[in-house]
Amino acid sequence: MSRRDLEFLLHEWLQVTSLTARERFAEHSKQTFDAVLELGEVIATEHFATHNKKADANEPHLGPDGKVVIIPEVKRALDVFVTAGLMAGQLDSSVGGMQLPNVVAKAMQLWFHAANVGTTVYPFLTMANANLVHAHGSPAQVQTYVKPMIAGRFFGTMCLSEPQAGSSLADITTRAERQDDGTYRLTGTKMWISGGEHELSENIVHLVLAKIPGGPPGVPGISLFIVPKVLVHPDGSLGERNDVTLVGLNHKMGYRGGTNTLLNFGEGTHTPGGSAGAVGELLGEAHHGLAYMFHMMNEARVGVGLGATALGYTGYLHSVDYARTRTQGRRPGAKDPSSPPVPIIEHADVRRMLLAQKSYVEGGLALGLYCSLLVDERDTAPDAPARDRAALLLDVLTPIAKSWPSQWCLAANDLAIQVHGGYGYTRDYNVEQFYRDNRLNPIHEGTHGIHAIDLLGRKVTMRAGAGLTLLLDTVEVTVGRAAQAGGVLAEFGAQLHAVSERIAKTTATVHGAGDVNVALANATVYLEAVGHAVVAWMWLEQLLAADGRSGDFYDGKRQAGRFFFRWELPKTGPQLDLLDGMDTTLMDTDPAWL
Amino acid sequence: MSRRDLEFLLHEWLQVTSLTARERFAEHSKQTFDAVLELGEVIATEHFATHNKKADANEPHLGPDGKVVIIPEVKRALDVFVTAGLMAGQLDSSVGGMQLPNVVAKAMQLWFHAANVGTTVYPFLTMANANLVHAHGSPAQVQTYVKPMIAGRFFGTMCLSEPQAGSSLADITTRAERQDDGTYRLTGTKMWISGGEHELSENIVHLVLAKIPGGPPGVPGISLFIVPKVLVHPDGSLGERNDVTLVGLNHKMGYRGGTNTLLNFGEGTHTPGGSAGAVGELLGEAHHGLAYMFHMMNEARVGVGLGATALGYTGYLHSVDYARTRTQGRRPGAKDPSSPPVPIIEHADVRRMLLAQKSYVEGGLALGLYCSLLVDERDTAPDAPARDRAALLLDVLTPIAKSWPSQWCLAANDLAIQVHGGYGYTRDYNVEQFYRDNRLNPIHEGTHGIHAIDLLGRKVTMRAGAGLTLLLDTVEVTVGRAAQAGGVLAEFGAQLHAVSERIAKTTATVHGAGDVNVALANATVYLEAVGHAVVAWMWLEQLLAADGRSGDFYDGKRQAGRFFFRWELPKTGPQLDLLDGMDTTLMDTDPAWL
Repeated sequence: MSRRDLEFLLHEWLQVTSLTARERFAEHSKQTFDAVLELGEVIATEHFATHNKKADANEPHLGPDGKVVIIPEVKRALDVFVTAGLMAGQLDSSVGGMQLPNVVAKAMQLWFHAANVGTTVYPFLTMANANLVHAHGSPAQVQTYVKPMIAGRFFGTMCLSEPQAGSSLADITTRAERQDDGTYRLTGTKMWISGGEHELSENIVHLVLAKIPGGPPGVPGISLFIVPKVLVHPDGSLGERNDVTLVGLNHKMGYRGGTNTLLNFGEGTHTPGGSAGAVGELLGEAHHGLAYMFHMMNEARVGVGLGATALGYTGYLHSVDYARTRTQGRRPGAKDPSSPPVPIIEHADVRRMLLAQKSYVEGGLALGLYCSLLVDERDTAPDAPARDRAALLLDVLTPIAKSWPSQWCLAANDLAIQVHGGYGYTRDYNVEQFYRDNRLNPIHEGTHGIHAIDLLGRKVTMRAGAGLTLLLDTVEVTVGRAAQAGGVLAEFGAQLHAVSERIAKTTATVHGAGDVNVALANATVYLEAVGHAVVAWMWLEQLLAADGRSGDFYDGKRQAGRFFFRWELPKTGPQLDLLDGMDTTLMDTDPAWL
Repeated sequence: MSRRDLEFLLHEWLQVTSLTARERFAEHSKQTFDAVLELGEVIATEHFATHNKKADANEPHLGPDGKVVIIPEVKRALDVFVTAGLMAGQLDSSVGGMQLPNVVAKAMQLWFHAANVGTTVYPFLTMANANLVHAHGSPAQVQTYVKPMIAGRFFGTMCLSEPQAGSSLADITTRAERQDDGTYRLTGTKMWISGGEHELSENIVHLVLAKIPGGPPGVPGISLFIVPKVLVHPDGSLGERNDVTLVGLNHKMGYRGGTNTLLNFGEGTHTPGGSAGAVGELLGEAHHGLAYMFHMMNEARVGVGLGATALGYTGYLHSVDYARTRTQGRRPGAKDPSSPPVPIIEHADVRRMLLAQKSYVEGGLALGLYCSLLVDERDTAPDAPARDRAALLLDVLTPIAKSWPSQWCLAANDLAIQVHGGYGYTRDYNVEQFYRDNRLNPIHEGTHGIHAIDLLGRKVTMRAGAGLTLLLDTVEVTVGRAAQAGGVLAEFGAQLHAVSERIAKTTATVHGAGDVNVALANATVYLEAVGHAVVAWMWLEQLLAADGRSGDFYDGKRQAGRFFFRWELPKTGPQLDLLDGMDTTLMDTDPAWL
């Protein structure tokens, strides 16, 4: 990550210090925000990045006693994280939190995503879990689970997927049967559970989606349960082992340092209270489980985009460093073989790979921070219309904020390998691991294709298209400012305006067909075209914020923005043509032809 | 790989059996060709694919005695390969070869690329080495080195790169000093040497680029040497250990099963004949080393493209299988959550990912086999003009045949992971390894950017543009046939014709600037645009070969071809616009801005 870029985006562009005028953030100042950012940078750099390669090369494994063995650096790093109070950055001061704005907390977390995704998975899931229980749990549940999670005594997980139900959560089969004492007993298998089993904390708090027998089929029948690995007495002391069993560890392409598990609930390995079945507490109301989860998931999705961006960003910085120091070849036309070779940053094609990375990662970062600020606007803006507006804009941007960086900051990591040549393909350098780690992001928290359907099938049609209208109107405000600024800004603004108008027209064309199969057939192309337009908008915003300022940093912004408008935004042309033509190639394909 | 597709491409399209009319291939027939292909399929499937995952998970490592330890399955597979006579597929019958056409030999080799790239590296490098020594060596060198390589007693390597000289071979510093007996002593360090050290064979024959002191600087000073790991007596028996030392093993993202090394020549670890320095024999004439090497390298580059294609192809087949059996979700508009889920191949976005893969891998395969046949045409066509024409067309197509599959069949592997969802990200499935293995291909044998410069800076300008003219004229012949065929073929032909005309114009524009820096600044975009046009041509050729034939196989060809013309070829529009605009964003970038 780049501290200078964060300074630019948070302060010069988004002016986050203005949030301190609001009651919730009144105790904060630019100084406290910057102190938190620096704290994150220092801890991530000194305690997380330092074992990133070792954790990748030494995956968690089962020891002879059946316990999960994790390299000791992980626990030591997490202790530092907890001791610094970072686990409760956004939570209320009443529970010991820092009450940070979301945008500042998310910016601080970037350092950890960039440093070590495997180790970061434990505290980040714990924070998401704590925030969710804090938002929807009873005071007793907050006391029993949230406080020990903030203190780092308990860690948390999210148990959504099952082996047969990933994208389609409606099809989960884990059952939760109500007991006479008001608790539930859960039975079922959960897949892809990060942090699902380990010895890093005294306890693990699983948040589990399950169905209560007799409820409606599909999504409306899903409830959410707190299922601790070890039962907790009312006084907070630990009791019996709950009936949650590790079936196996998943071995992945990347993200290798983080434990990812297949868990059985209620298989009878343990018998709490004398009988099998994992003991769970209902969180909030029955049958609202997926709504609670998606409240968290939507922010988690912006978080995935930011995580993808952080990996792209660190890969970019590594490749710039390499390109400045590695010498190879000579400039075109320089024929003298006895002249000294030049740093490869002198070669046009290496600059292409660096500028492309820069335009992707700084564009993605702007989008992620913009959306993170929308969360604060939604939750704390002084007037209700501003809160509604932020909520609506966030809703329509979320599939893009998740998917665009997952695609393009992964592409950045690919370019970072290429800049390094053969060295980038070895594990002696860092960039191939960044690629492998980042490759998860287009898959989890809703695949690329799922977000495409979310955007085209739901977000741009909801409230009679109000979300898309708001997005395009907001883009037009920026275009208007660019027109005022004149010069190349006006030129880029006009280019964005034209694409924006096409998107409105294409959206109407696609939905005008009246056949949901036809409308959604090319949803991914739509997601990608709108995504590029949105990031072009983010670039125009950055160029406006940099306008009139001089120096290498601002010149770099201008050049990367120019790259995006000249090299990237035109890619939307053929995409929108394809959508306008209502191409039916995909639908017309008989599976037997494949 | 698909045997059905090979049958279509080799026999129905390229009609390779017609080669048997030539004297060199007179002993062959469709039956012998098909027998070789089947032999390759059986051996690759039964002896190579079976340890592909194990080799990936158990990299070669140094044992306590300093020897390289490789899992035993590798040696067993290589013994089968050698025993079947496959090491000498293309060589003359006079040295025990099968005298196969290049196109048939390369098609047979596809099965090995698809099955296990790590193990395949040993025999394929040995074959390239043997072919090169056979082409340029003395009868004694052929006797001493080629025959034991064919017999599998010796394996071969190619030693080009050095730690400080990869893309820029002009800068190698390995020295070869002539001795009184006519041999040379070599001193220097070679990097990225696949198969550089192992116990799989009695000896390793290194082909080493080095400079003889006093020669001209740069490329014209490079000579090629045979440097065996163990010296060979004139009677063929093994003598002293030569002064070649393993410095270390490279640990890579993929291709993990194959040994890749850093070697020191002449560091004095061994003292053959009582003094340090690696003993080498000059191959051919002094100062022609790079020319000899590039003779081989050009075919190796088509081979890289075919290898990338084979990995893309097997990933495609794995993902089709997965998509047919994995069930998840329901069709758009099917709201009943109690209805059974559908196989994911029913979802439009999954079909997109499958059709895209199919269009890339079958397009890449057609291009690779077409170029492989051009090698046969160049070497064995009955009349000289046909041989010249083939040589010229092959020359201009080689950077594309190397780079396009390395980019797009890698993209296919990425899509294969995505089709598998979370499972594809685990090492329990095969597709993530295919991606990691394939990621090498845009790097080695000339990086993507180097081939872009080769195409735009050399291939399309050589002989006053004769190569590009020939390429575009050859495309026009296909376009003319498509116009005759009518219907959608004529439509696609017209689309290709328009792109082809733009390419001619854009090429003239770019070179018309008269400034080599400006001309080459956007070379990679040029490579990628021309690449897509060439593969569209290959698809039009396939569609013509399939025209009038019915059945799922031919319908699949038609649908993948349609996908390429509708979804892929239009991507060249913004690329050619950018080139026509002579964009200078890359050149204008000050390194301090990055």
